[in-house]
Amino acid sequence: MAFTATDHALMARALRLAERGAYTTKPNPMVGCVIAHGDEVVGEGWHQRAGEPHAEVFALQAAGERARGATAYVTLEPCAHHGRTPPCCDALVEAGVARVVAAMRDPFAQVDGAGFERLRAAGVTVAHGLMEADARRLNRGYLSRLERGRPWVRVKLATSLDGRTALANKDSKWISGEASRRDVMHWRARAGAILTGAGTVLADDPRLTVRFDDDDATGEGIPFVPPMRVVLDPGLATVARDHVRAGDAPTLYFHAPDAKPPRGFAASHAVAPMRNGQLDLAAVLKRLAELGVNEVQVEAGATLAGALLRDGLVDEVLLYMAPLLLGAEARPLFDGLHIDDMTQRFELGLVETRMLGDDLRLLLQPKRAP
Amino acid sequence: MAFTATDHALMARALRLAERGAYTTKPNPMVGCVIAHGDEVVGEGWHQRAGEPHAEVFALQAAGERARGATAYVTLEPCAHHGRTPPCCDALVEAGVARVVAAMRDPFAQVDGAGFERLRAAGVTVAHGLMEADARRLNRGYLSRLERGRPWVRVKLATSLDGRTALANKDSKWISGEASRRDVMHWRARAGAILTGAGTVLADDPRLTVRFDDDDATGEGIPFVPPMRVVLDPGLATVARDHVRAGDAPTLYFHAPDAKPPRGFAASHAVAPMRNGQLDLAAVLKRLAELGVNEVQVEAGATLAGALLRDGLVDEVLLYMAPLLLGAEARPLFDGLHIDDMTQRFELGLVETRMLGDDLRLLLQPKRAP
Repeated sequence: MAFTATDHALMARALRLAERGAYTTKPNPMVGCVIAHGDEVVGEGWHQRAGEPHAEVFALQAAGERARGATAYVTLEPCAHHGRTPPCCDALVEAGVARVVAAMRDPFAQVDGAGFERLRAAGVTVAHGLMEADARRLNRGYLSRLERGRPWVRVKLATSLDGRTALANKDSKWISGEASRRDVMHWRARAGAILTGAGTVLADDPRLTVRFDDDDATGEGIPFVPPMRVVLDPGLATVARDHVRAGDAPTLYFHAPDAKPPRGFAASHAVAPMRNGQLDLAAVLKRLAELGVNEVQVEAGATLAGALLRDGLVDEVLLYMAPLLLGAEARPLFDGLHIDDMTQRFELGLVETRMLGDDLRLLLQPKRAP
Repeated sequence: MAFTATDHALMARALRLAERGAYTTKPNPMVGCVIAHGDEVVGEGWHQRAGEPHAEVFALQAAGERARGATAYVTLEPCAHHGRTPPCCDALVEAGVARVVAAMRDPFAQVDGAGFERLRAAGVTVAHGLMEADARRLNRGYLSRLERGRPWVRVKLATSLDGRTALANKDSKWISGEASRRDVMHWRARAGAILTGAGTVLADDPRLTVRFDDDDATGEGIPFVPPMRVVLDPGLATVARDHVRAGDAPTLYFHAPDAKPPRGFAASHAVAPMRNGQLDLAAVLKRLAELGVNEVQVEAGATLAGALLRDGLVDEVLLYMAPLLLGAEARPLFDGLHIDDMTQRFELGLVETRMLGDDLRLLLQPKRAP
């Protein structure tokens, strides 16, 4: 399927629109839509919140009568089913759209090609696969949940140049600078859950909430969906630390089958199976996917980060590297990797590099399971 | 002193010319010269090798009669003394140059302001301080030797993301990629000496020579000055490893007063004083400065790198970071820093970041002595 330069430019625009929903659409995918005649845009929209109109509806409303004979660029296959809103396919057909260009098929069981079929059946020209890699990257959390049955797992770590996340005495304030700490909030806001371990809760008593400055707000008055805090606490040893339960965001504890929450403990808690004397991390992630979590951001110490990596459960590493040295006795980045031979080394690919104040932010993806 | 945009542009050009001598002028400073009428360049030159003509001479030769009434841009104060070549000041005056703009004063005892005086006395307009920070940065090795009595010390390290330079079994081949290993050669070529420790010689038996591919050659047919190899070997325990003595580059061993080189040992060797049971690193560096070494590149393990850092003797860290993890049992970047408290953390500033193949190259400077 050949696409024109105009097709590319307008799909790129639709992808940027989609991304505006990063903090607010979950658990739904981010979707953007641009309606155009040639390179003249007559309407655009993006999906803002689950249960509210889809991107196509906003774009059609904006286009009005000018949708007739136009091309609609959508970052995801238009829906064919009656969910909380009527099918977008029908709306596109009714508005007289002549051609639909989609970046990718929606693997959601009730769509999964049915949208394209419905459009074609109504005489609309359909093309898809334009900027598909970008569209997949945008919704990597949603796609992971649907295609793999587990959320996309991002491990966030702040490290020194010499790969240390805390001193031997566990002091880790402040390794990264202010710009990095502000940046973390945006990544938290994308996530459906922030995952941490009992060690971090005991050591730092963190809140793990999204705290935006004024100029960081999502704007446009759309209510923000705060990510759930998830604490892996086999023995429920951390329940006295209550920062992680404070505020508006929900909190969920996973614990071992034999642990009992204390009398009157009000937070949500769930049993996770044990594996090798630890909570089964794959089972925890599966459960989070069932709860509608697309992206998990792990904010924990070297033990949990290392265990996830060892189990092949890390999809992306978000590394804030501060230009300082903490010395060879300080705490490592990932514990428990046990690499005895260069062939066992764990390779990642650098996706993106950026300066944040004095720090360097690296986004990496593991090349293989260890 | 106000400089024009033309002054800036032509000094920037002179600085780029100067840098062409990076591999060949040592122990002399790199110097570039541009002669111009307004923004019309009539001659340019750069210092190529110690003992051969200075930058000004080449530029004046190129300008010929057109030097009369022109402005000469030089990255360093023109010399006023008869060394191996006659004073450049006299040549500039004789050629009728009307104005000399210098980036900086030359702290060399036989110049140190005398060049400017001699020019002014001959009726030449003199201005200096234009792009001085760049000029100082260019010749940071030469300036360190003259002003501090020790070379500029660059520690080169190849590390994993988790701050490891080798596995516990000392295997470090290959942490960084091919592009990084080629890049190291350029930094070696700038240096007057490559410094290593007995541990690295025993473990790796390195050559520490400059090996350029064809397209890396300095070009222009100027003979290259290979850096001296310097081995810190208190007990002369490494003399059986002879790669570090092979090839054209000289090799110098520093050893303890009580160590004796074996019968028939042909390489240069010198006694260094001991301090806290180790070779006194400051004394070694002082001796290298006396030998005309402007820049030292340290290619050693965590012990020597850590000792130099602890002693406040590191001026720049050249870090090749490969996107891989070696685990918490692997060898650290710097040994022996002993940081017990965040206030003791060792801060650096990021000077430059660059991708080299899959690796990230960071150039950093310590913010303070530890």
